[in-house]
Parts: sequence; C-alpha cells; structure tokens
Amino acid sequence: MKLKALVFDAYGTLFDVHSVIRLCDELWPGQGTALSRLWRTKQLEYTWQRSLMRRYADFERVTVDGLRYACAALGVSLSESQVKRLQEAYLSLATFPEVKEALGKLSHLRLAILSNGAPSMLDPVVANAGLDGVFSAVISVNSLKAYKPTPDVYQLAVRRLGVRKNQIGFVSSNCWDACGAKSFGFHTFWINRNDAPVDRLDAAPDHVIRSLADLPGLVRHSTKEAPTGRAAWRLTAHRSRMSRP
Amino acid sequence: MKLKALVFDAYGTLFDVHSVIRLCDELWPGQGTALSRLWRTKQLEYTWQRSLMRRYADFERVTVDGLRYACAALGVSLSESQVKRLQEAYLSLATFPEVKEALGKLSHLRLAILSNGAPSMLDPVVANAGLDGVFSAVISVNSLKAYKPTPDVYQLAVRRLGVRKNQIGFVSSNCWDACGAKSFGFHTFWINRNDAPVDRLDAAPDHVIRSLADLPGLVRHSTKEAPTGRAAWRLTAHRSRMSRP
Repeated sequence: MKLKALVFDAYGTLFDVHSVIRLCDELWPGQGTALSRLWRTKQLEYTWQRSLMRRYADFERVTVDGLRYACAALGVSLSESQVKRLQEAYLSLATFPEVKEALGKLSHLRLAILSNGAPSMLDPVVANAGLDGVFSAVISVNSLKAYKPTPDVYQLAVRRLGVRKNQIGFVSSNCWDACGAKSFGFHTFWINRNDAPVDRLDAAPDHVIRSLADLPGLVRHSTKEAPTGRAAWRLTAHRSRMSRP
Repeated sequence: MKLKALVFDAYGTLFDVHSVIRLCDELWPGQGTALSRLWRTKQLEYTWQRSLMRRYADFERVTVDGLRYACAALGVSLSESQVKRLQEAYLSLATFPEVKEALGKLSHLRLAILSNGAPSMLDPVVANAGLDGVFSAVISVNSLKAYKPTPDVYQLAVRRLGVRKNQIGFVSSNCWDACGAKSFGFHTFWINRNDAPVDRLDAAPDHVIRSLADLPGLVRHSTKEAPTGRAAWRLTAHRSRMSRP
C-alpha cells in the first residue's frame, strides 16, 4: 500500500470547534456545554436523516436548524443576531495546535479536504486559518446533495483527485466517518482525541491515532510494505485495545 | 382525507422501553440512565449510518452493538449473560397504559406495525403484550435491508396493506420518524410524550398529540373533511406552539 493522497475531514479534525462552544457559554452561561452538545448531535442527526429522506439542505442550513432545535429543547431564547454570531464563529475556527506542522511534513502527498460543510463555510474557514494553497482540493458534499457516510461522498474525492481509492488515506476525528471511508475503500486514520471506543459498524479504521502529530511518521511507514515496522506494531496494539469493550 | 389504515411504530410508541432502562439501573447502579441513553443514541445512529453505508445488519445486532459501545464508553463491564438478559427484556416490553383501549377504539381501521425491529424481536413482543390478532400486518424493515427514514421503508406498508399512501395514517413517538413518514406521503401523528420541539426536517408531522389516547377522537375528525372541528383547531394550536422554538 502506497498512499498518494491524504484526504481530511474538516470540523473536529483540522478545525477546533471549541471557540463556538466557548461562545455558547458566553451567550447562555451555565448551559453552554449542554447546548453545544445537543446542537452537534442534532446537526449530525439531520445530515443522516435528510440523506435517507432525500431532503438535502446544505450544512449551513442544517447547522442553524440544529442550533434552533437545541435552544428550543433547552428553553433558551435565540435572537437572529445570536444566530449570526455563532455562524460567523464557524467561519474563523482555529486549527488544532499540531495541524500546521503535521501538514507541512505531509506536503509530499496531495492533500485535500472532504467535508459535509457547504462551500460558503469551507472556503472562509480555510482562508481564515491561513491554509490557502495547502490543499489541492477543498471538496464539499454539496454537489452531491447527500452527506457522509454515503459512499458516493467519498467517491467525490477519488474523482476530484484522480487517484485510485486504495491509494488515498482518509483522516477523521469522527469514528463513524473513518468507518464510512474504510467501508468505501480508503486507507483510514481515526483521530481518537477523546479516548472513545471504536464504532461497531463492521468497518473499523485501519489506524487509531491521538492527534495529527502521529500522522507523518505513520504515513512514512504506511507507504512501505505494511505492517512490519515498530510504529505499525504499536498502532496495532493500540487499535486492539480500543476496539475491545 | 379519509384514513383506511393506521400504521404504528413499535418501540417508544406502542411499547414502553422503561423496563429495559430499569434493568440497566439494576445492573449498573447509578449509571443506568446515562447508559441507556447512550445505548439508545448509538442504536439509532448505527441504523442511519449503516443504511447510508449500505452495510445493513439487523436490529437485534445493532441493538447489541449499541449496548456494547455504551458500556465500553462508560467503562462498565458487560458479560454475555447480561447481554442476554437485556435482549430478553426487549422481547417482553409492556405497552404504554393507554395503548389497548386506544387500539380497541380504532379497530374499524386496518392496523399495522412498521418497525426497525427484526422479525425475531417483533413477533415475541407483540405476542407477549397480548396483541396477537390486533394487527393486519407486523412489518419489519428487515426484508428491505435499510432503516427508517428511508422512503422505501414506508413504501413497505403501502405494498403490504394494499392501501394508497394518502389513506394511511402513521403514528410514531419519534419525531424524525413521523417527519420521514410525512415526507414520504403519509398522514402523520407524532406522539410527543416529552414535550420536545418538532424536528426541523422540512416535513413537520400533521398532528402532535400527547398519547395514543388522543388518537381515536382525532382520527374520527380526520376521516371527515379537515380541519374544521374543535379537535382540529385545538390540535393546530398545539402544533403551532410545539413547532415554534
């Protein structure tokens, strides 16, 4: 297995949504954590449900819908100016601290983003984070009108990059996304930032890592015949631990 | 609009999963609520993700997978005999207290169940609750190998009952399920047992009710020209309140 390209999920993987959570805390003191958690849950549920219902709406819309639901459920008021502030916070997320250095070490590969995000969200967040020019492609599911983990979404990256799927490494902090990509045929890296169990979807990620900082060394090993090196061994041990309840 | 058939969701709609939650509390004192909540979340997530990934596994499997995930995430041990006890609890759920009387008042219509549940789960739960003979059909998604809210799932009921979709009333306590059924073309009743907001999926349920006890009166009105009667008015007012955050 020799990787020619690396495709990254955006939110939670490259970009840290913590600043949005902090703003929720500021707007609704004491309820920020519960609210942002329910918001995220609904945002994702709506992507899956709408994909199955064949009622796609773009991620900007789904994100605001999730927010409105969460506020209604928790009984807190939400003004249009608050909606706007939170939407704007989504456009200027910081990257996780290790991201830039890791991407720099991976620049010998073609790098891309594949995200549920609408183009109107992705382009600003990439630019505001100073990542212009780093990626060969910033791919939104929007052209397909379906969300991850629909296999056709992952196929978008194959088509856009012109690289065979077994030569593409896919990196996500969402385990179900890494499973979806694995099920499609990518070589997958799950960034397990919160020490969570592996999702039980019959398509476990090939590698489980703690942060993007682990990726450059691992990709170097992955581009040789796998898995014999020490890093591969450590990884397998880690993965086994993670997948057993 | 004249309804000829009523199709019911099973878990949470006719059958109360409270006894399973109580057993969780008994098995893992102090963690039962958190565990059963995460279990339910994962159970549903897996149905949506697997449907999109085209990796169907039946609901018995998905239910156990959700349980294993939840126990691993909360760091509690789970023995195979505990798995078996919880699976068995799923087969002998009580109905909600109002269910039998309400179904009795609706017996002039064709009644059916349409559930994510595997046939191996549905047949026992119906029999154990003393509901044998009440339903013209107990329909599982299993023949389709996809889960709600995929439109094809709702089509299963149309085909099985031989009734046009605009003559079928669909009843669920899961708002996203009622939305999926509405999006498909059923006349929908959402049982909002927990005073939750309406899900924002561009397919709001036609009626929002508190329990199945509200259904017989409403269906009598619904079978006349709608919506003019007092019940219809009250309902509309209730629905408006519910759908506004």
